[in-house]
Amino acid sequence: MTALHRIGVFDSGLGGLTVLNAICAANKGLSIIYFGDTARVPYGSRSVETIMHYAEQDVRFLLSKDVEAIVVACGTVSAIALSELHKTFPIPIIGVIEPACDAAANLTVTRHIGVIGTHATVHSSAYSNYINERYPDCTVSGIECPLFVPLIENGFREDDPISKMIVERYLSPIRNTDIDTLILGCTHYPFLIDTIRETLPGVQLIDIGVTLAETVGKTLPLSKSIGDNFVEYCFSDRETGFRRFDSEHLRSLPNGPIKAVNIESF
Amino acid sequence: MTALHRIGVFDSGLGGLTVLNAICAANKGLSIIYFGDTARVPYGSRSVETIMHYAEQDVRFLLSKDVEAIVVACGTVSAIALSELHKTFPIPIIGVIEPACDAAANLTVTRHIGVIGTHATVHSSAYSNYINERYPDCTVSGIECPLFVPLIENGFREDDPISKMIVERYLSPIRNTDIDTLILGCTHYPFLIDTIRETLPGVQLIDIGVTLAETVGKTLPLSKSIGDNFVEYCFSDRETGFRRFDSEHLRSLPNGPIKAVNIESF
Repeated sequence: MTALHRIGVFDSGLGGLTVLNAICAANKGLSIIYFGDTARVPYGSRSVETIMHYAEQDVRFLLSKDVEAIVVACGTVSAIALSELHKTFPIPIIGVIEPACDAAANLTVTRHIGVIGTHATVHSSAYSNYINERYPDCTVSGIECPLFVPLIENGFREDDPISKMIVERYLSPIRNTDIDTLILGCTHYPFLIDTIRETLPGVQLIDIGVTLAETVGKTLPLSKSIGDNFVEYCFSDRETGFRRFDSEHLRSLPNGPIKAVNIESF
Repeated sequence: MTALHRIGVFDSGLGGLTVLNAICAANKGLSIIYFGDTARVPYGSRSVETIMHYAEQDVRFLLSKDVEAIVVACGTVSAIALSELHKTFPIPIIGVIEPACDAAANLTVTRHIGVIGTHATVHSSAYSNYINERYPDCTVSGIECPLFVPLIENGFREDDPISKMIVERYLSPIRNTDIDTLILGCTHYPFLIDTIRETLPGVQLIDIGVTLAETVGKTLPLSKSIGDNFVEYCFSDRETGFRRFDSEHLRSLPNGPIKAVNIESF
């Protein structure tokens, strides 16, 4: 396989920037197009049909930018649409599910894995389907956390008492179970990771962005060139949310042009 | 003006159903098309350009259903797009701003009016522009409440401690001011009205859905026929959110067919 120089990374919004950051930290000399569908975020509360339609448009946009492989840095799209995207588009497309499940199955001692995610992710059974097939001795329990994304997108920090109360509400039911490993099934959730850790002491947390970035490095024949990465940031809505998010959370993102995309036309 | 038999009502999602309910309670024999843009809700955190584009698509969809007038049951669209919609489309289009401001100016003694709304609504200055022109002795203060819509859309009841804490966070700064009248500038907010009232004792609350429905009855020459209203419910995403919302909040909505709309094609 020839070395890849140009890849696409997409998310429903800004959470996938954590994945972009991890890929940039691990690889040099790549050209990366990031797309965030900020005009239609969040995906996780929408129907399967709508998520599928949006995901296909996102991929078609990235293909129009001549990317050679695509990283789905969105928990919801990975859970709902990945196998269909594989059938439809003839380039490598990597999602978060398999790397996260492999990491969790490798860590769990009790063989009981928890997955937190959006409504769509939890109802898709994508994690349990993969784990049941690959690690039949493991059990998976899913927990919906629909307010986590709005909290983060609206600038609530994880040490805010409101954030702590919402984390406690969603996650306290896990505390007295034998779940010893929890997949944070949305690329936004690492912004709450310290509070989640306090709420569930002793539970091992899997950051799907980190496991995804590791898998990208291992499975894609990325160009081993040197020099800076070239990143282009594309959004379906204005850039201001990105600049605010970046300054708060992601100071280390590489510089790059910011462009507006009419995603409906793809 | 000939009597109108068929009107359209739209919102970014489900909040506008409260307005539909009020219109149905006050008028009989009408045919009403409701459109909720559930595939792209929420509007209030998006850019002016995107909200304008979505609003024009929503209106074009309703025109394709042969409506004779349109009620904008969305605080964000009313604040951002109403004057442009008036220029573009040659039928009566009524929004929430003017009725709410007239009601507030009529009630306030201190002449200081508060408006709570989405990011887009508060930054539009739509309320203060109208009030400054029409009631120059009044002052308007706007307060963003971006988590209210996600709370309600995700089924948090207003007596939930999390809802109470978020209401307190956003509204406690109003408590020691001379604001004596508060416009609830989003059709979702009446679902929090009792908690808002407890948080701001003595402040008069304006429900924009109620004042809008009154204005519709006064200003549109609606057919005075008898018999049931015929309502058609159209959504850009699946209907399940609607059925859940209805059973919790809106038991009195008239029955009617539910249809899916590909809003991107308008």
